[in-house]
Amino acid sequence: MSSTKGLEGITATESSISSIIDDKLTYVGYDIDDLAENSSFEEVIYLLWNQKLPKLDELNEFKTELISNMDVPKEIIDHLKSYDLSTVHPMAALRTAVSMLGLFDSEADVMDEAANKRKALRLQAKIPTVVTAFARIRKGEDPISPKNELSFAANFLYMLNGKEPEDIEVEAFNKALVLHADHELNASTFTARVCVATLSDVYSGVTAAISALKGPLHGGANERVMAMLTEIGSVENAIPAIEKKLENKEKIMGMGHRVYRNGDPRAKFLREMSRELTELTGQSKYYDMSVKIEEYIKENKGLPANVDFYSASVYHSLGIEHDIFTPIFAVSRVSGWLAHILEQYSNNRLIRPRAEYAGPKGQTYTPVEER
Amino acid sequence: MSSTKGLEGITATESSISSIIDDKLTYVGYDIDDLAENSSFEEVIYLLWNQKLPKLDELNEFKTELISNMDVPKEIIDHLKSYDLSTVHPMAALRTAVSMLGLFDSEADVMDEAANKRKALRLQAKIPTVVTAFARIRKGEDPISPKNELSFAANFLYMLNGKEPEDIEVEAFNKALVLHADHELNASTFTARVCVATLSDVYSGVTAAISALKGPLHGGANERVMAMLTEIGSVENAIPAIEKKLENKEKIMGMGHRVYRNGDPRAKFLREMSRELTELTGQSKYYDMSVKIEEYIKENKGLPANVDFYSASVYHSLGIEHDIFTPIFAVSRVSGWLAHILEQYSNNRLIRPRAEYAGPKGQTYTPVEER
Ligand SMILES: CC(C)(COP(=O)(O)OP(=O)(O)OC[C@H]1O[C@@H](n2cnc3c(N)ncnc32)[C@H](O)[C@@H]1OP(=O)(O)O)[C@@H](O)C(=O)NCCC(=O)NCCS
Ligand SMILES: CC(C)(COP(=O)(O)OP(=O)(O)OC[C@H]1O[C@@H](n2cnc3c(N)ncnc32)[C@H](O)[C@@H]1OP(=O)(O)O)[C@@H](O)C(=O)NCCC(=O)NCCS
Repeated sequence: MSSTKGLEGITATESSISSIIDDKLTYVGYDIDDLAENSSFEEVIYLLWNQKLPKLDELNEFKTELISNMDVPKEIIDHLKSYDLSTVHPMAALRTAVSMLGLFDSEADVMDEAANKRKALRLQAKIPTVVTAFARIRKGEDPISPKNELSFAANFLYMLNGKEPEDIEVEAFNKALVLHADHELNASTFTARVCVATLSDVYSGVTAAISALKGPLHGGANERVMAMLTEIGSVENAIPAIEKKLENKEKIMGMGHRVYRNGDPRAKFLREMSRELTELTGQSKYYDMSVKIEEYIKENKGLPANVDFYSASVYHSLGIEHDIFTPIFAVSRVSGWLAHILEQYSNNRLIRPRAEYAGPKGQTYTPVEER
Repeated sequence: MSSTKGLEGITATESSISSIIDDKLTYVGYDIDDLAENSSFEEVIYLLWNQKLPKLDELNEFKTELISNMDVPKEIIDHLKSYDLSTVHPMAALRTAVSMLGLFDSEADVMDEAANKRKALRLQAKIPTVVTAFARIRKGEDPISPKNELSFAANFLYMLNGKEPEDIEVEAFNKALVLHADHELNASTFTARVCVATLSDVYSGVTAAISALKGPLHGGANERVMAMLTEIGSVENAIPAIEKKLENKEKIMGMGHRVYRNGDPRAKFLREMSRELTELTGQSKYYDMSVKIEEYIKENKGLPANVDFYSASVYHSLGIEHDIFTPIFAVSRVSGWLAHILEQYSNNRLIRPRAEYAGPKGQTYTPVEER
């Protein structure tokens, strides 16, 4: 049993979406390095959903459809205004709002392939709107509508901050979205597939995935990395603080990975962005601390930095509040969830493993008075 | 790969909650037959959460705590009144309302064992209130508060219908709740465990489980069994209608099971209840049809009836609307979900299997203008 605990190394399904082979990551056979250097997030979504890169007219049409679906029902904005946002985690708010989006989609339970693709597009388009509306409403600001001429990445930053972002910010943010888009059977994607293998609907699948991404061993790690860096405070304090954490048997957030044992191919891009952006914003200490921690953990624990480690200081440099980091992971990863949900429907079987019973056996029931 | 499709036969975890061995089901080592005959649902919840049956004073205290936690925030009732309930599936409404309950629980993200147990109790108590409030508001009626002197089963029927149920109704409904409470790593429970193995919170785990239960291959089957029986309409039409469905390669809802290949130990109780209750309400035809279908499918496809098959005519005889059947499954199964969530936390490891890559390899990126 213990050898497969956490289903380590068990093949749960075939998939044609992304691959991790010899510590290399591809989306539909395209190396993540090429996509990170050259591609737009819109193009990557299209690739994951259609198993091919779009031609120019297909891409333009797809971009237009995305932007024109970004509005969310007024009831959902009203809902975001109806409770105490200062005490609620943005991921819990997102989980609820996405579930609620299903209540306003008359196609929510229509299960043919075309309808499921339309719902995928709606979810991909509306999730950034929910995340940015939440962040703004919390600060007493009104939600902002997207601009047609902006890219997906630029629109997100625009809807978040209310001003058009600089080119370098858009470039970095687009790259982060590309790098987070899919990752084979990570825990939230697997949650989504187990969920929809009952033939439950797309909204249920994405709600379940958000529920899983929220956890600190998964998407929730990036927010906690930033909390750790903030707490450490200075480059000099980095190693002593980490040593203390390890002594207390605390896990170092952003370190380690189930599949990559040598290195996460996404981390190098985020590291480089972190270097550039922290320098640009006069916060190099976060980059310097991160490098020290990465090296120390590599040497002493043999664990590599994962995608969440440097994305923390990248998002921080972009002026994003720390508890919005995990929702941003969702803004990107929902593209992968949706690809996997559509793939699951296309060749479905209920996902239902067994448990090994370890409890008492052969107990005899006695009436409550006699216990 | 195909041999483990759907993780059939793969052990995903140890568990001390329920066991299925030689087509026998136990909760914590107590045979489901004994529990169905003798136990109350409250007692079964206690058993699943504490791995022992309660003594009298423990049971009384537990009952009191359950009832005193049944109220839900006014905002959630207001929310149920704010959208078009006639077009929304009750399971989508429940998914949203449970996610929203997390927004009003200041302990939602407190992860120690005591806090998690308190949240379990709140969810178990509040879900019946949400389900019954939804059903009443949809009919233009006000939600009803529980009565201290009624059992969990009786309170559910009381809050649904606004009048105290007969003893035979309470007995049948209690038995149905006991029989549905837990079932090892069924798809919704497995969804919950995959979700919380990221160390996500209890509300996320239960929201994810509801998302999975909604699917027609899982909890959604009971509603569809009743739709089938209604459509068939008469005992004479049962076999011809089923033959036609099988010709059209349709699945017969309520038939078949991943684990039980010979028979579902829960089905016999539900069959007997169906016999009694349909006779009592002058609707024996639903029972008679069901028996004919069960026998035909057993003979011709070798598939047994599962828990959802006779529960359909049982709930129908209790006067419950058909689309409330799956939410009732949730009212019971949430007890098992919560037991598994607490167990997962107590000995956690991320659940993260692999996919076998079946897509194109070694693709070369070209700029969009050149495609
Ligand atoms: C990602 C992660 C969940 C992978 O988990 P896994 O494959 O189940 O790895 P295990 O928990 O079996 O770890 C193997 C060993 O490394 C240790 N380890 C793993 N990640 C660690 C970390 N971040 N800090 C310190 N020790 C760690 C474990 O304690 C374990 O040590 P042991 O054998 O002495 O008990 C895990 O590395 C982790 O929790 N990382 C921190 C959270 C994070 O960054 N998540 C984002 C992932 S993209
Ligand atoms: C419960 C269920 C999902 C189990 O699925 P599973 O273990 O993956 O079973 P499979 O889909 O591999 O079924 C094996 C064979 O029996 C057939 N089969 C299974 N359930 C069937 C049903 N209800 N009606 C008709 N044929 C059925 C399958 O088509 C398959 O036939 P094939 O080998 O010719 O393709 C499945 O039996 C089912 O869909 N039942 C109906 C829904 C239901 O009642 N769900 C509630 C479960 S508590």
